[in-house]
Order: sequence, then C-alpha cells, then structure tokens
Amino acid sequence: MKREKYVIIGGDAAGMTAAGQIRKLQPKSQIVVYERSPHTSYSACGMPYLIGGLVENDTKLIVRTPEEFMAKKNIEAFVFHEVLSVDIKARTLEVLNIQTGKLFTESFDSLLFATGAEPIRPPIEGIDGEGVFSLSVLQDGLRLQRFIEENNPQKAVIVGGGYIGLEMAEAFCRRGMNVSLVDRSFQVMNTFDIDMADHIADAIQHVGTSLYLGETLKAIEYNNNRIKAAITDQRNIPADIVILGLGVRPHSKLAKEAGLPLGVNDSILVNQMMETEIEDIWAAGDCAQTWHLVTNKPFWVALGSVANKTGRIAGINMAGGKEHFPGVVGTAVSKHCDLEVARTGLSEKELEDLDFHYETVTIKSKVQAGYYPGAGDIHVKMIAEVPGGRVLGAQIVGAHGAAKRIDVVATAISAQMTVRQLIDLDLGYAPPFSLPWDPIQIAARQLL
Amino acid sequence: MKREKYVIIGGDAAGMTAAGQIRKLQPKSQIVVYERSPHTSYSACGMPYLIGGLVENDTKLIVRTPEEFMAKKNIEAFVFHEVLSVDIKARTLEVLNIQTGKLFTESFDSLLFATGAEPIRPPIEGIDGEGVFSLSVLQDGLRLQRFIEENNPQKAVIVGGGYIGLEMAEAFCRRGMNVSLVDRSFQVMNTFDIDMADHIADAIQHVGTSLYLGETLKAIEYNNNRIKAAITDQRNIPADIVILGLGVRPHSKLAKEAGLPLGVNDSILVNQMMETEIEDIWAAGDCAQTWHLVTNKPFWVALGSVANKTGRIAGINMAGGKEHFPGVVGTAVSKHCDLEVARTGLSEKELEDLDFHYETVTIKSKVQAGYYPGAGDIHVKMIAEVPGGRVLGAQIVGAHGAAKRIDVVATAISAQMTVRQLIDLDLGYAPPFSLPWDPIQIAARQLL
Repeated sequence: MKREKYVIIGGDAAGMTAAGQIRKLQPKSQIVVYERSPHTSYSACGMPYLIGGLVENDTKLIVRTPEEFMAKKNIEAFVFHEVLSVDIKARTLEVLNIQTGKLFTESFDSLLFATGAEPIRPPIEGIDGEGVFSLSVLQDGLRLQRFIEENNPQKAVIVGGGYIGLEMAEAFCRRGMNVSLVDRSFQVMNTFDIDMADHIADAIQHVGTSLYLGETLKAIEYNNNRIKAAITDQRNIPADIVILGLGVRPHSKLAKEAGLPLGVNDSILVNQMMETEIEDIWAAGDCAQTWHLVTNKPFWVALGSVANKTGRIAGINMAGGKEHFPGVVGTAVSKHCDLEVARTGLSEKELEDLDFHYETVTIKSKVQAGYYPGAGDIHVKMIAEVPGGRVLGAQIVGAHGAAKRIDVVATAISAQMTVRQLIDLDLGYAPPFSLPWDPIQIAARQLL
Repeated sequence: MKREKYVIIGGDAAGMTAAGQIRKLQPKSQIVVYERSPHTSYSACGMPYLIGGLVENDTKLIVRTPEEFMAKKNIEAFVFHEVLSVDIKARTLEVLNIQTGKLFTESFDSLLFATGAEPIRPPIEGIDGEGVFSLSVLQDGLRLQRFIEENNPQKAVIVGGGYIGLEMAEAFCRRGMNVSLVDRSFQVMNTFDIDMADHIADAIQHVGTSLYLGETLKAIEYNNNRIKAAITDQRNIPADIVILGLGVRPHSKLAKEAGLPLGVNDSILVNQMMETEIEDIWAAGDCAQTWHLVTNKPFWVALGSVANKTGRIAGINMAGGKEHFPGVVGTAVSKHCDLEVARTGLSEKELEDLDFHYETVTIKSKVQAGYYPGAGDIHVKMIAEVPGGRVLGAQIVGAHGAAKRIDVVATAISAQMTVRQLIDLDLGYAPPFSLPWDPIQIAARQLL
C-alpha cells in the first residue's frame, strides 16, 4: 500500500490542528507543512498582550515549534517556506524557501489550504512606510516590538476601532503613550449595535484614548522617513507610529489562482466536511468559508477558536473520517481596559438586512449579587424572533465576569432555544457569581 | 365579580416572586403574605458573606421590605406571623402573630406554600445550647453575628462540609479564627465526586482550616453554659462556637398536617405547574418537589435560583396562566477561598445507583490563555452516556473564572446535547478569557 502524502499550506491553528488529527488517525502517513512566516502554531491573538507588556516574551506565544512537531508527532513543518502556486491537476506545488531563495516542486495526495487571513491595507498615501504596522502573523508583532524599543514612539494613531484596534489602544495606553483612535464609522466595534458600542467607547476614552469617529484616514505624513502625522478627512493627528486595525480578509489568492471556487468574502468555498470542490483538496481556518447557524447561510469569520474547530474537522476527514462542521453563531469576546464585551448571534444592525421579525431588549444588572463586594455592572442586549421567541442574538458589555456569560446564549442559539427556555435554564447561582436570575435570564424575561 | 384572595405562606424568594407575578396578572386581586421571620425577600445565601465581613450590614441582604411591597405592589406582607394550620376544606388558615401572641383565622381562594427549607439538626447532646448555630433565615445570621460580637469566639467547629459549612469555614478564617471542620463522610462537598472534592479539601486546608473527615459529631460539651468542645467519635475539638451545616430538608410539616401528599425527601408533591393534588393549593421554592432533566425523575433541591423560577411559575398559574416548569439539571456553584467550584447534571457517585452506562474523563487546563498573566488552573470532570455520548454531568474546580463555565454544560444538558455537539459550540475565545478550545470542550474531546 502506498504511503499517503498530506501537504498543508499554513502552519498555525487550522493547519497544525489538522496535521495532529491526521497523524492520530494515519500513523504511517507522511505529513508536510509549509509556513511562510518564521513560526508554527503561535497565538496571533496574544500579540496585543505582548506589546502591552502583559506577556513577558514572544516565546510564550508559541505553542509548538517545528522541531517539537517533528520530535513528538513526526510532522515535517517548514517555516520560511512560501507556496507560490498549486497545480491541482498535476497534484504539485511550487515552493519557495525564503531564506535560501531556492524554488522546488512538491507533490501531494491530499492538500489542505490553511493560509489564514491577511490584514486589509487600503491604498493610502504613506501606508507602506516605516512605522506603519498591521498585526497578522507573530512576525508582525515582533517587528512592532522592535520598532517600539528602537524608536520609543510617544504618539500612536490607531486606525480602525475593531478588536485589534481597541486592544492595541489599550496596550499603548498601558505603556504610557498618547493614543488616538480613528474610525470612519460612527461607533467603535462594528459587530456591536451602537447603543452597546457606546459603553465601549466610554471605557476607551476613560483610559485616555482620544476617539475620532466618523473620520477617514487619507494619508500618513512623513518627515525624514519618520511618521509625522496621520491625516484624516477632518484633521491632522500628530503621530510617530500608526497601527492599522482595518480588519482582515481571507488569504485565498493562492487557492483562487489554482482554480478553486471562492465563496463569501472571497473565502475558499468548502462543504461542511471542509472539502473544496476539487477532490482531495481541503480548506480550513481563516481562509475558508463556514456557515451561520442563525441565518442558515454561508458565512466567513476569522477567529482562532473557529480555525481550531474547522482544522480538526478537515484533518479527520482528510484521514478518511466523516465529520461535519455544523457552523458558527458569531460569538466573540474581548476585554478593553476593565470592560468585558461579548456578542453572539445576529445584531440588530445585521438583522436589518435580513428577513426576520424580531424584538430587542437591553437591561442593566449586576455581575454578582448586588451586595457582594465589588459587584460590577453588566448591560445585556437580547434579540428574539417574533413570534415564537427564538433567541437570535445577544450582546454584553460589563465588568469582570460579564463576557463569558455569552456562552450560554451561544449554546442556546445552537440548540434553537427560545427566550422562554432560557428563563428556566438551571444556571449556576451563588452570590460571588450571579444574582438568582442570571443577567441573561433577566434580559430574556423582558422579552416574554 | 368577586375579588380573588391569594394567600402565600412564606415571604422569601418563591413566595414574593409568586406574589409579584400575581399582582402583574391580576391587578385587582388581594394578595396576603405571612412570614414567620422578621424579614421578607432577603438573600439567605448572603449570610456567610455578612459574617465574614464582606458585606457591610444586614440591610444590604434585604431586597424589599414589607413596607416596600405594600407601597410599590399593593401586597400585604406580614412578618412575625406564623401559620399554625391550614384547613384545606374550609379554605382557612390559623395564624399566630408572634409579637402580640394573638391568634386569628384567615381565609383564601388560592393558597401557596412557600415555606422553604429548614436546617437538619440531629438529636445530639448539647445541640440546642447557646453558641450552636445553623443558618436558615436571615434572623439566624443576625443572631450569629450578635453572638460573635458579644463573645468574640476564637475557636470554631463547623459540622458538615457542604456549601454552608465551607462558606462559614472561610468566613471564620477571614476573621482570624481557628477553624475545624468535621464531616462524617470521607470527603467535603458530597455533591462532588471524591477526586474533585479533594481539590476543594486542599484549598480549605490551605487557608488554615483543620479538616476531620470520616468523623461523626457525638456531643457538644459545655462549661458554665459556654461551649467547651465538640466531641466526635474520634476526638475532642476545643471550641467556643459550633456551626451546623448538615444540610436542609423541605419545611413541609404544615402542608403534611393539612393533608397534602408529600414526594421526594418529604417535599410537597406538585405537578409541573407547581400545583398540589388539591385544587387551588400550590407550592413552590425549597419546600416543593421538582424534576431532574437527566434522570426524568422527581427531584428535590433547595436553591435560591430554583425557588425564584418555581415561584414565578406558581404565581403565573395561580393568576390563571398555564406555565410549566421543565425541571432542573442539578447545577450549583460556590466559591471557597480562591477556588471556584461548580457541578451540574449527575455525578459518578449518583450514577452508580442509576441505570446508565457512562464514561468519565478529568482534564486539567487553564482558565485563560496559558501565556495570559495570572492564568489559573481549571480541572474539569465530564461524564457522558455510552453509547451516544449524551452529556450527563460535569464538575469544575478551578481558579477565578472557572465556575460559571458550568452554565454551558447545564444548557447543553437541558438541550440533550452530546459531547460531539459540545465540541463544535461557538464559545467565546480571547486570551483574557479562554484557550481557543474552552476547557469544557477539551474535556468533551477526550470523551469522543
């Protein structure tokens, strides 16, 4: 019997999770991973904490090195190796060893695209200059860290008020820098409705970030190769470093050039087994399409937790299994200063474009029993279908202990529960953790 | 039309929640509540925090006074009023005004038993003496607090290693007292399996509590009316205060004497509408029976969260509604020193007596991303049915942020999910909150 050869393009969450599953199910197969950055299996999500000084050094963010993959799992992972093209008929890849400049051809029996996502960089004057950073791979974080050490920037402009933008704003505030945040929309955190996003904006301003909403970056101005200012359509903001947090898009160019069909947001089209339209070719993680369990439509999201899950499914199926990924419900959590924020399902903004009838409620309650020392505020917005009361979505903004409560709603949405069913759920109650009615249930009660 | 008269026996969680629902649905009805203690609507669960000094004063534990119920909801709540007997044929009650000693007869159209639970006090020599406390109603907490202030006890013996016992051990340790805890079983927290309970025992000992497991209290010894020692079957433990945390039982004597049928653990038998076998007579809260969604059998539990839920259902139905309470899954959370503990569903111990085939797994992981500062340990035990993988139960012991993760499992159990389905749930991930795979999912993966 021929020894099956698996090739994986991309050595982070999805790729390495798939590799691990294949190794488990096909102990004798050959598994080769090509990763163009210098690192495998790292936590990209950890970069803001590294920059903010909360994480001591970059090695803490690396889960497993290529050497460890070889020693422990017999997986051949090559970093600094970029796949330049894929020939889906010949079942070959053209690979560039970035360090030596050498080009070679690799063959595969089964191929996984786990090429991730890439930051959006609009064609703005000065955007490619020194001192402008976006954060995608760990290398970006290390470059940024080196720049900070060498140049000691004092005035930072963050462009984009999403997760990365806000996390970087906080990291820079923590370093004592003067931070401005620009977003062309009239709120931060576009995945939240504006009423909830306003609480987040307040917290960000409270730690000293200047917020310029409804403004668009037009250019980055330099003086002797050093950033001087970020120019918006309304003002010049003095800066010596600029961070782009304008979101990411699927890194699907390679797959597209190989002739693979693309789907939502140009993500690689796959079925629920993470299989592309071409036999023996798979895709998983931030580059691949997924499904939304509320809309029942194709969906795309770039998140480490989802990449791990779809990578697992792809790996099992590549090794001969038959697992289906049900999809996502759009859950996301993050922490900004002392504020925890979370969302799941659909927001009111998203619902406006869809064919749902719904009602919403927003409540303010406490994370712990009101008398418990330090009991913090929590705001819960909940959205339910009318009639019937099926839970469509929720958003949470609150103090320590607030965010992970979204998981109950995410689970309830997956199970197609109604607000009526949420109310009777047997959730944990004790004064250090909750009121007798969990805030989620207090919101659900208002929708009855 | 006759003005309907609702009478409620018991003015805490279940009774007052029911009263509120009735008022909402029947604005013109008469609602009378009799409560034998001096307080309505208080948080009994908050007493250990009051004693431990975390809660400033007892008024913080009172959600609403009789005066407020009258002013805001036109509910006539009488404290210091004990119902001595119920005549279910005549539709009358005999009520004692404890302060005046006056007896009177009250009539009702619709009656709710919300009489709560009472502490178990075994017939042990010295148990009724001065300085021996159990905690049931808020008054008990206040008496205990006064005793401590007046007598400044230094050596406490806690009998019973359940929630109350452990919470009181911690409260006393916090006050700098010398604390011993005695339990006749060989573990603390009997609702947990022993492997998980051992982590809790370690934490309790770590803050200075001496643990005497497998020992039974035989007597309490006095010297001039002051406690001298607690005598177990194995030793004399010097003491000047003794706390009984031997669990509670339904306070169903009044209902039984009235001729109402009792169910599990002598709780008042009700259907899922919280209706007893006698028309127009209802029961809710700690005195009433409920159902277990995993065993599909009658069940009894005394918990504020459940009391609020069944009180709500009873109130709606008494006012003419048609709501069913689905039941509970046995969720409980608590905090002992820096350790958070949680359980839901069935434990291995409980399963041994039932007709299930199951497998268990225990994993150790981190509450936050491993590199996030202060990331604490979490132990998750998960139990699934074999074959099929339906989630039967889980137990969690861990650092800050661990306990409320049980809610996902509680929700999943309510929705009859399998471990396979748990794995694909779209739970919140960001480094300050979780690993990309939530610890719950890491445990579920091991059961596949």
